[in-house]
Amino acid sequence: MPQLRVALAQVNPTVGGIDGNATLVEQWTRHAAGQGAHLVLFPEMVLTGYPVEDLALRRSFVDAARHATDALAARLAAQGLGETVVVLGTLDRDDARADALGVPKGAPQNTAVVLHRGRVAARYAKHHLPNYGVFDEQRYFVPGRALAVVRVRGVDVALSICEDLWQDGGPVAAARAAGAGLLVTINGSPFERDKDDVRLDLCRRRAAEAGCTLAYVNLVGGQDELVFDGDSLVVDAQGTVLARAPQFDEGMLTVDLDLPEASAPTFDDGAPLPVEHVDLGLAPVPSYPPSPSGVALARSDESAVWAALVIGTRDYVRKNGFASVVLGLSGGIDSAVTAAVALDALGPAGVVGVSMPSVYSSSHSRTDAYDLAARTGIAYRVVPIGPMVAAFQQTLGLSGLAEENLQARVRGVVLMGLSNAEGHLVLATGNKSELSVGYSTIYGDAVGGFAPLKDVPKTLVWELARWRNADAAARGQVPPIPESSIDKPPSAELRPGQLDSDSLPDYALLDDVLDDYIERDRGSAELVADGFSPDLVERVLRMTDLAEYKRRQYPPGPKISVRNFGRDRRLPITSGWRERAPRPEPPG
Amino acid sequence: MPQLRVALAQVNPTVGGIDGNATLVEQWTRHAAGQGAHLVLFPEMVLTGYPVEDLALRRSFVDAARHATDALAARLAAQGLGETVVVLGTLDRDDARADALGVPKGAPQNTAVVLHRGRVAARYAKHHLPNYGVFDEQRYFVPGRALAVVRVRGVDVALSICEDLWQDGGPVAAARAAGAGLLVTINGSPFERDKDDVRLDLCRRRAAEAGCTLAYVNLVGGQDELVFDGDSLVVDAQGTVLARAPQFDEGMLTVDLDLPEASAPTFDDGAPLPVEHVDLGLAPVPSYPPSPSGVALARSDESAVWAALVIGTRDYVRKNGFASVVLGLSGGIDSAVTAAVALDALGPAGVVGVSMPSVYSSSHSRTDAYDLAARTGIAYRVVPIGPMVAAFQQTLGLSGLAEENLQARVRGVVLMGLSNAEGHLVLATGNKSELSVGYSTIYGDAVGGFAPLKDVPKTLVWELARWRNADAAARGQVPPIPESSIDKPPSAELRPGQLDSDSLPDYALLDDVLDDYIERDRGSAELVADGFSPDLVERVLRMTDLAEYKRRQYPPGPKISVRNFGRDRRLPITSGWRERAPRPEPPG
Repeated sequence: MPQLRVALAQVNPTVGGIDGNATLVEQWTRHAAGQGAHLVLFPEMVLTGYPVEDLALRRSFVDAARHATDALAARLAAQGLGETVVVLGTLDRDDARADALGVPKGAPQNTAVVLHRGRVAARYAKHHLPNYGVFDEQRYFVPGRALAVVRVRGVDVALSICEDLWQDGGPVAAARAAGAGLLVTINGSPFERDKDDVRLDLCRRRAAEAGCTLAYVNLVGGQDELVFDGDSLVVDAQGTVLARAPQFDEGMLTVDLDLPEASAPTFDDGAPLPVEHVDLGLAPVPSYPPSPSGVALARSDESAVWAALVIGTRDYVRKNGFASVVLGLSGGIDSAVTAAVALDALGPAGVVGVSMPSVYSSSHSRTDAYDLAARTGIAYRVVPIGPMVAAFQQTLGLSGLAEENLQARVRGVVLMGLSNAEGHLVLATGNKSELSVGYSTIYGDAVGGFAPLKDVPKTLVWELARWRNADAAARGQVPPIPESSIDKPPSAELRPGQLDSDSLPDYALLDDVLDDYIERDRGSAELVADGFSPDLVERVLRMTDLAEYKRRQYPPGPKISVRNFGRDRRLPITSGWRERAPRPEPPG
Repeated sequence: MPQLRVALAQVNPTVGGIDGNATLVEQWTRHAAGQGAHLVLFPEMVLTGYPVEDLALRRSFVDAARHATDALAARLAAQGLGETVVVLGTLDRDDARADALGVPKGAPQNTAVVLHRGRVAARYAKHHLPNYGVFDEQRYFVPGRALAVVRVRGVDVALSICEDLWQDGGPVAAARAAGAGLLVTINGSPFERDKDDVRLDLCRRRAAEAGCTLAYVNLVGGQDELVFDGDSLVVDAQGTVLARAPQFDEGMLTVDLDLPEASAPTFDDGAPLPVEHVDLGLAPVPSYPPSPSGVALARSDESAVWAALVIGTRDYVRKNGFASVVLGLSGGIDSAVTAAVALDALGPAGVVGVSMPSVYSSSHSRTDAYDLAARTGIAYRVVPIGPMVAAFQQTLGLSGLAEENLQARVRGVVLMGLSNAEGHLVLATGNKSELSVGYSTIYGDAVGGFAPLKDVPKTLVWELARWRNADAAARGQVPPIPESSIDKPPSAELRPGQLDSDSLPDYALLDDVLDDYIERDRGSAELVADGFSPDLVERVLRMTDLAEYKRRQYPPGPKISVRNFGRDRRLPITSGWRERAPRPEPPG
């Protein structure tokens, strides 16, 4: 059987940063060639970054991607890397397709290209276009209509892109019909909790369906609200995992494969797609002793979520040209965990914590904030807000909720002033539970460029705090988060003696309801049938429905769940629809 | 030829307000029956409101729409309206379609139903699903696969929904193949400038293709960022406009039609869709003398845009449960025009203007603000911000841009305090030109629940001001906008002697560049080829690209153009892509 050394480049491009992304491809191709790889695989749209959204509809951007693809092929050859076969994702267009209403303007295609000896030797356009969740690919791309099979050193390699694997039919079935010896899938598959298990099961199933080994390479790194977790892997048709890369780390996974020798192209009338064969004219590799590959250990749930928050925050900050962040430290759990995420993302020199006590702040709010800074080494300042609040109150004389919100907004103005003056990005510290029910002050604690906990329910915030502290202790380091911040009852401290539990159900209960309502789209009748009380259901659903306008103006944050409040949950602000809990009939 | 009196109900439902929408249908059906109408047409998804976005994926919501449709049919019959044939849009599902990845959950369908004698006599599901611009229908709906033709008093009436008319092929061609005598199209077609002309041309063309008269009924009213302008019309196969409703007004257009008598159902093998025939079993109407119908005069461009802003603002405020608005009055043109829009939307009792002078405010900023209030009768207050700014500065000592932004943010806190204390919705006063290039303070002048001028370029703001004043003068009313606000050079007044022209190109030039770049997606090379200077192009495009994060947190506003900054323009925040103007080669 022919042998092939395949390198999977799990890399972190930047959307739109075409020149830098091309350099990334070049560097890793050189590394792969140095390791003796015959075939190097890069993820979906690595050259443009992913997802490019409306940039796909800009002719000048597609032209730039096309030009960069050709230039990269030439550059690799000029640098002596032309014999290494490179598969990578880029943006192209279907020139045969005329503009028409309902067809994405300019007919862009999400494309895989094969670079060899200075030119683009083969192309494949993504066939299945996802248009759900965070994906809008039917807005942006026209589908490809043929499978590409490329003969590489005696092996027929079929190309596919991400969703091609997730949906039934199409390229996987065509790869079997074409008798492919290796199915390559290049991906931009975002992190969600537990998705690594789903992904492995899927790869096993599709390898079996294709009847050949499957090599799956994924992006890594943060792009706005998405975090790509890598998890690149190779699995054979029997479901054996031959190699698997660690989640969240940029790097290269190299694997030596024994693959079936290609015969004359098979033309199966039953193939669900036409198949285009390209022979690169490369002789099989002389037999060589294979090197062993690694299979990375799975992370715990907390470890994976933590890594997603850290990488999402780091890449948002850095890719947007910032070097540091500033955030309010209240002494509470949310700001403490946000600070710890920022610490891991940017180091202590990249984080400024500001304690902004008011007359309603407890003494522990200041000591706990100070304690966090002392444990972590981040910069720490105290800006009492009393004089500023008083200046507003002398004119406005606000009371009640308006007075509570005033304090939160004065803090927002302080943080933005420091941001403008010193160049830090402001982090908002709100969590998903608060944001769901609107327990947040718009233009107050909602101020910020990025919100690391936006998709993290309150109960998970506590779990992450305990996990991070335990992990530090296990490494012999100082746990970053004060125990008192974890243990104290949550309070916004905007009026005397205020507790979150004055306004909200117990967080464990609240998170259960929200999980059913938001992640699973269950209605009120189903929630009540699940055993939640009708009053609780009505109260939580009403708060949640009414808070859409606040969520819409909240900063972005890293997505870790099926549905977050970024672009994948899209609700009208103006809406008369209120889920109502069914009530028992009144006694006759 | 059979006669038919057809009533087109151009009405204003609320998304999710199913009970109220059903009442609306009932009231207008009673009105139509009172006018002797045989057939009443209501717009697309009138029963649920449109667009419902993610509500479509909630089983409980689809169930509620289904139940309400059946209940409405029964209610109409119980009230003696069962003989009037009613066509309306609602939300249904395809029960035969199983859930699968890539298929909208629960297989919702955008559906037209025919109500007659207490039941749903026929159904048609939208065939062409738009997934561009403001539309995401491939996320939410599965397409219908058959045309419905309903025999109503001797006439074969074919049903279609909105996009079915805009895209080639499908229901229109099937209506001709089926020999339909009347093609009904129910619509949720949002306003854009000059779209009324496009719409009329389209209706004429499709009526000719279908070979029969076409009745087009559209929604009216505001829903979040969309404004539906009505413009319902009836056109015959020769292109003659038989009736046309005024844009933006809720009401009923009634027309008497002579239509071809239906024969046995035609089964044309060439039909692009299967055709389902339903005969309601109603005899043709005895001959009667037809009444004349009206054809509304077209509005001027300024009048149509003004109406869209007023209705968009009115409906956003009222449908979200507010009765009044508060906004900052700077004496400048943007706040003056925003106040005039609010005045027309809510009346003088619904508008509170707040002058918030700082040490940098000119004397005319106060007198012009006062003049506006005096002309219009809106409430007027003065809240000097000096003491509040000083309180921040004693601690923070900000300078430069940070100090400028501080003033804008203090004003935002004042407005939100008044909003929380008194229950007004805050209006943001920024225009599209400023928002495009990021000339706006996030959490400052960007504070608000709604932004009436969000999609209005600065040059159009001036045109609208002049138009509104001239229109008032022509009616013998006091022009609302002070001439001085129109004539003075624009300034943010955040530092001594500041003018917008210090930071931005002349607005006429800026708006030309932005129009090409945003509305037409032209690249920098094309802009330079159009004659703009490379320096100007680079400067404007760079500012525009970098401002995406600010635009993302800006409040919604009524859409009047091809592409606004709401959901139809979707760009990554993190992006290395910067359009660059091509430069001449340096001299060798």
